[in-house]
Amino acid sequence: MAGNLGRADAGQIQAWLEAINEFNSTPEFGTTRVLFTEPEVKAREYVKGEMRKLGLKIQEDAIGNIFGLYEGTEPNLAPVWTGSHIDTVLNAGMFDGMSGVVAGLEAVRLIKEAGLRPRRSLAVVVYTSEEPTRFRLGCLGSRALAGKLDAAAAYALHDAEGKSLYEVLADLGFPVGDFAQVAKKKDEVFAAVELHIDQTGVLEKAGQTVGIVKTICAPSVLEVTVEGRQSHAGGTSMSERRDAYMAACEMALAAEKLGRESTSEYTTVTVGKVQVIPNAVNVIPGKVLFSLDIRDADFAYKNKLAADFRQQAEAIATCRGVNVTIREVNNDHPMPCDAHIRQLIEENCRKLQVPYMQTISGAFHDSMLVGEFAPVAMIFVPSHGGISHSPQEWTDFAEIAAGTDVLTETLLALASA
Amino acid sequence: MAGNLGRADAGQIQAWLEAINEFNSTPEFGTTRVLFTEPEVKAREYVKGEMRKLGLKIQEDAIGNIFGLYEGTEPNLAPVWTGSHIDTVLNAGMFDGMSGVVAGLEAVRLIKEAGLRPRRSLAVVVYTSEEPTRFRLGCLGSRALAGKLDAAAAYALHDAEGKSLYEVLADLGFPVGDFAQVAKKKDEVFAAVELHIDQTGVLEKAGQTVGIVKTICAPSVLEVTVEGRQSHAGGTSMSERRDAYMAACEMALAAEKLGRESTSEYTTVTVGKVQVIPNAVNVIPGKVLFSLDIRDADFAYKNKLAADFRQQAEAIATCRGVNVTIREVNNDHPMPCDAHIRQLIEENCRKLQVPYMQTISGAFHDSMLVGEFAPVAMIFVPSHGGISHSPQEWTDFAEIAAGTDVLTETLLALASA
Repeated sequence: MAGNLGRADAGQIQAWLEAINEFNSTPEFGTTRVLFTEPEVKAREYVKGEMRKLGLKIQEDAIGNIFGLYEGTEPNLAPVWTGSHIDTVLNAGMFDGMSGVVAGLEAVRLIKEAGLRPRRSLAVVVYTSEEPTRFRLGCLGSRALAGKLDAAAAYALHDAEGKSLYEVLADLGFPVGDFAQVAKKKDEVFAAVELHIDQTGVLEKAGQTVGIVKTICAPSVLEVTVEGRQSHAGGTSMSERRDAYMAACEMALAAEKLGRESTSEYTTVTVGKVQVIPNAVNVIPGKVLFSLDIRDADFAYKNKLAADFRQQAEAIATCRGVNVTIREVNNDHPMPCDAHIRQLIEENCRKLQVPYMQTISGAFHDSMLVGEFAPVAMIFVPSHGGISHSPQEWTDFAEIAAGTDVLTETLLALASA
Repeated sequence: MAGNLGRADAGQIQAWLEAINEFNSTPEFGTTRVLFTEPEVKAREYVKGEMRKLGLKIQEDAIGNIFGLYEGTEPNLAPVWTGSHIDTVLNAGMFDGMSGVVAGLEAVRLIKEAGLRPRRSLAVVVYTSEEPTRFRLGCLGSRALAGKLDAAAAYALHDAEGKSLYEVLADLGFPVGDFAQVAKKKDEVFAAVELHIDQTGVLEKAGQTVGIVKTICAPSVLEVTVEGRQSHAGGTSMSERRDAYMAACEMALAAEKLGRESTSEYTTVTVGKVQVIPNAVNVIPGKVLFSLDIRDADFAYKNKLAADFRQQAEAIATCRGVNVTIREVNNDHPMPCDAHIRQLIEENCRKLQVPYMQTISGAFHDSMLVGEFAPVAMIFVPSHGGISHSPQEWTDFAEIAAGTDVLTETLLALASA
């Protein structure tokens, strides 16, 4: 059956990625497409239009997840999913997320073009807001599918302007009354495979085209608030000051050291967001808020690292006469990928003669949450220079095409099972 | 002559300070009155109205300095100035600057009420933008009076929205065509005395009501730009990252250490303003800008400290594989106060039985620049808890009144000379 499959078209993949990239609120510096801003809403419409051209049946749920369905010969069987996200962080690139959606479209196009119609339905999925840019929590769509974000939680999540996710969804006309129907039960989805850029230099350095993901690392996000005493930069002597920013700097460096000295298989520690109050040249900061993003392949190690940080931050605060409060924004579980699907992907790499390696995902992905209710696996393609979440993010279209060929064979095998 | 002088009215001082404090763009958290915003323009109108009520003749120059003139019997003699500023930093208090303007009004009120008219004219001055909040450079008005800020410089100074100081002045109808006439020659002003809150805990701790300033410390402001590589928080291993923020934290702590270990009489080092780009939880910062404010009573020591910082910042950058560029925004000279006026102030403190001490000003003031063309001195009154540039900034009205009595006697003696 798979013999009839054509090869993925790098030109088609490029055209789709470039078209999606036009929906961008910072064309002068990278790509910014934040959840439910105008460019993001327009990008959704564009992707749905392309799904319609491919003859897919479109469904959207209360949280805005988009499903483009190619119906199987036995549509009552649990379907096979593939897909990713189309929202971005600020000043990002054009590949993170979008590559997986476009690879899904291309896979279905190839299967249909070959005249193939497997038993199980295939769905190309666009998950809502994998990035935490707007609501400070990532994987909103997949989180809801996993039963971990209900209507009450959507009411409680607020963006920087104080608007709740629920309100935003309702304003845009999503069926928020059906929120209770979003979550999937186990066995409702047969398997889910996501293609994604690797976001490290690992594949490129090893000279491999595909990475088969063993485990998806899970993030903890802490919000750290340091309160000192706001006072005059010239009038307050060095010994009198209780400088919230200097304390925050020491805490950030302590966190970095914990990350560098980790004995776990993969650990990262990042301070990405910092707010200094009042943020004036000649005023000693009275208050600083910063985020701490901790990721680990090992849930227990991650929790130990967070506890160690808390202890060190409190010691620094005491020493400097400031206060520190640490709030846990989220704490996700690392997700192992399904052994059977990984095996299938490996066989298809060999069959298609695509160079491959086993790898770990330091980044989290929607698959981390989809894995809560279905067997998942991920196919990585190289990021040049390991750069991601940046305007310099780049993956060759031919490499996405090679990964898409592996994805297509794998989806076809799963949908035929 | 001075025998007829009444004592300063703490109630009147309070009324004026509270009235000015109504012009505030952050009434929910302290006082914010940034140069030429609506509250600041309204506060100017209010002060000019009060000057008119006192019978003062009002003059304004091209950069917006306000002069309320009480003409002497020999109006061709060089006048005596007193005054301060009415703009604030973000989320500040109601005393820094305003106390000196209100003390000046009260001094002239007392002199007029006693039926006294000295030889030299007295001017109550409101200097434009002592705080660097809007244009990142302080003492704009006094700087122009000192001949150190001309029309070309006013064109070159831009606020965060890209508008030049010159444009802003022209839009508000100031006589920008007369910019060349703003600067004062030596001997055009006989003497200038500024009352100000001390902004430290020194007076309060020593139980003194007045501080006679020996030297005004001068700031250097550096703008530090750290450029690393923006990339994914989870996907970039600890060893691969070139994190601009962690480098900036190390640099801030190195600067603090230089300040703490200073062997000069008075040194402060402050990082007050920090911008992290792109400032997202899950992105390693690619770029960080921060301000470094260095103050010292000794110009040579200050320059040595700035050079030491530059060397250490470059070493940190090299070690972390990031780039650092350091731009000197300004570098002012510390200003010694005039020995004769200080002597006069001391005599008046003794005469009025106001407890006093000699002190150093860690903060800069308009007097630092007025000192470039006239003999200057400063009268400090206590700041409770040493807190300033903060909503908690406080000075008792009775203490401002006591300082105003010393100011009034001193102005009268100078204007009679």
